[in-house]
Amino acid sequence: MSDAPIGVFDSGVGGLTVARAILDQLPHEPLLYFGDTAHAPYGPRPIAEIRRLALAAMDTLVADGVKLLVIACNTASAACLRDARERYDVPVVEVVLPAARRAVAASRSGRVGVIGTSATITSRAYDDAVAAAGVTLTSVACPAFVDFVERGTTAGRQLLGLTEAYLAPLQEAGVDTLILGCTHYPLLTGVISLVMGEGVTLVSSAEETAKDTYRVLARGGLFRDPDLPAPAHRFLATGDPRSFTRVGRRFLGPELGAVLPGQPVGGGTRDADTSGAQQPLPVSMAVNTREADEGGEMAAVLATATATAEAVRR
Amino acid sequence: MSDAPIGVFDSGVGGLTVARAILDQLPHEPLLYFGDTAHAPYGPRPIAEIRRLALAAMDTLVADGVKLLVIACNTASAACLRDARERYDVPVVEVVLPAARRAVAASRSGRVGVIGTSATITSRAYDDAVAAAGVTLTSVACPAFVDFVERGTTAGRQLLGLTEAYLAPLQEAGVDTLILGCTHYPLLTGVISLVMGEGVTLVSSAEETAKDTYRVLARGGLFRDPDLPAPAHRFLATGDPRSFTRVGRRFLGPELGAVLPGQPVGGGTRDADTSGAQQPLPVSMAVNTREADEGGEMAAVLATATATAEAVRR
Repeated sequence: MSDAPIGVFDSGVGGLTVARAILDQLPHEPLLYFGDTAHAPYGPRPIAEIRRLALAAMDTLVADGVKLLVIACNTASAACLRDARERYDVPVVEVVLPAARRAVAASRSGRVGVIGTSATITSRAYDDAVAAAGVTLTSVACPAFVDFVERGTTAGRQLLGLTEAYLAPLQEAGVDTLILGCTHYPLLTGVISLVMGEGVTLVSSAEETAKDTYRVLARGGLFRDPDLPAPAHRFLATGDPRSFTRVGRRFLGPELGAVLPGQPVGGGTRDADTSGAQQPLPVSMAVNTREADEGGEMAAVLATATATAEAVRR
Repeated sequence: MSDAPIGVFDSGVGGLTVARAILDQLPHEPLLYFGDTAHAPYGPRPIAEIRRLALAAMDTLVADGVKLLVIACNTASAACLRDARERYDVPVVEVVLPAARRAVAASRSGRVGVIGTSATITSRAYDDAVAAAGVTLTSVACPAFVDFVERGTTAGRQLLGLTEAYLAPLQEAGVDTLILGCTHYPLLTGVISLVMGEGVTLVSSAEETAKDTYRVLARGGLFRDPDLPAPAHRFLATGDPRSFTRVGRRFLGPELGAVLPGQPVGGGTRDADTSGAQQPLPVSMAVNTREADEGGEMAAVLATATATAEAVRR
């Protein structure tokens, strides 16, 4: 057992989809997330610089005592997975290999596709990952997808047209399995599935990385004691914390506040077949002002996802 | 275009995994969620009673003007999908058929498995859904999984042993695709994947239902105007709103509050190869007291996920 946090590194907010998939599977594990948003996106930078930035960020996580390191960034995985394995004593999990293994296992035809940022596709990291498996990989860079996701635009004619254009080579290649090789893309499975059709299996690198994290913790006996109180999660960003918070909420998941007492129309115990379906909702409603309150709070230096008390330190 | 909400119905909290998958794909769409927690679980009830309860709840959603109805409950889908289609003018999406179609498309060997509650497995709804596809379906009821998920226990020797026992018939049957036929189970993919192995494709009914919702809105031209302000979501529960909130937060996703300014150990611009990895984190931390504040707020009659102002009405 280990009560230390899981360290999750990304150049920005995209790794939060990975963080969320891990929290879904492992709600008792504390996360320490580091988004190097001051230097995001990593894609356009030379590989040596990406390596330097990523290792410096991961040094921070390891110095904080994480028990496992997740490189939740396709670009950084391609640049420095081997350096990280050599440099740190803790296990290192990344996003490319779990998705590649899953796609190879899922494909019926041996025709697999991968979409990602230009940097990821140019790195050929997924080609290397499936090279020994005898599948045919069709790779397409979809550089504009990240902007759509960060703006929260996941529908509409413009996105649909762009998606059709991006994915046309994958349809021509007849892929039956498509790797979402960017941590932003799990938020676009609606439109991607609409364009590719229901016959194509979508493989999310976020979900597969969470499964790999679960496996590594299970095999290493590294789960946290489940009888401990709910864990506190910490989120670090080198850039503007406000924009990280704004976009990050969407990635980490919507917030559930209080709940309204529900009452079926006309009551739920009589035969519904006789109910008048046009009655108004017999509930009272009020305006929620929490969001406004949070504006000031955003300037605070730390948020934890739960109320676990932590000693103040500098 | 339609600015009306999407109605999501479940007997309890499990449908929140469906709600979340929909919000991931469609962050501009308002949701109205109805959890009939006062009568949950539906499983042990006679089918006529399930139909009566479910239709009464869905009447409430339709009376509120939803533009599409999602039956996010395997038991209710099996009991009254056809009644709902006949009864309401709005499109009805449910959880069984999208997952069944995806599993048939994904399977290489034609050997598919499904796990669910006893009620879902006994209803043979998935058998009916794949009957025409020529696959062999192995069905296993996993009644204890829901309790583990609601307690937040997703790891440990007890769950692992239980999972191995539940899934043994599926391994013996050699399934290559496994339908998670209960809306709670996407929160158990870590342990399920560990036991079944990486070669087995897991199909989430929550994710597939969200894709189906996206398709129906796209085909019907029913997307909300994306230029409108961020939508407000409403959550109704017939039972105790506190327990709904406590469990529901885990299902809907962790909350991201404020973000801590991160700073790589020793700064991120020099060569990381020379950094001392053991320096303390150069950040200040404070205790977050929001959770405590929320205790009182929980008694409020309504929460919206965003600050969209809504007129007070009764």
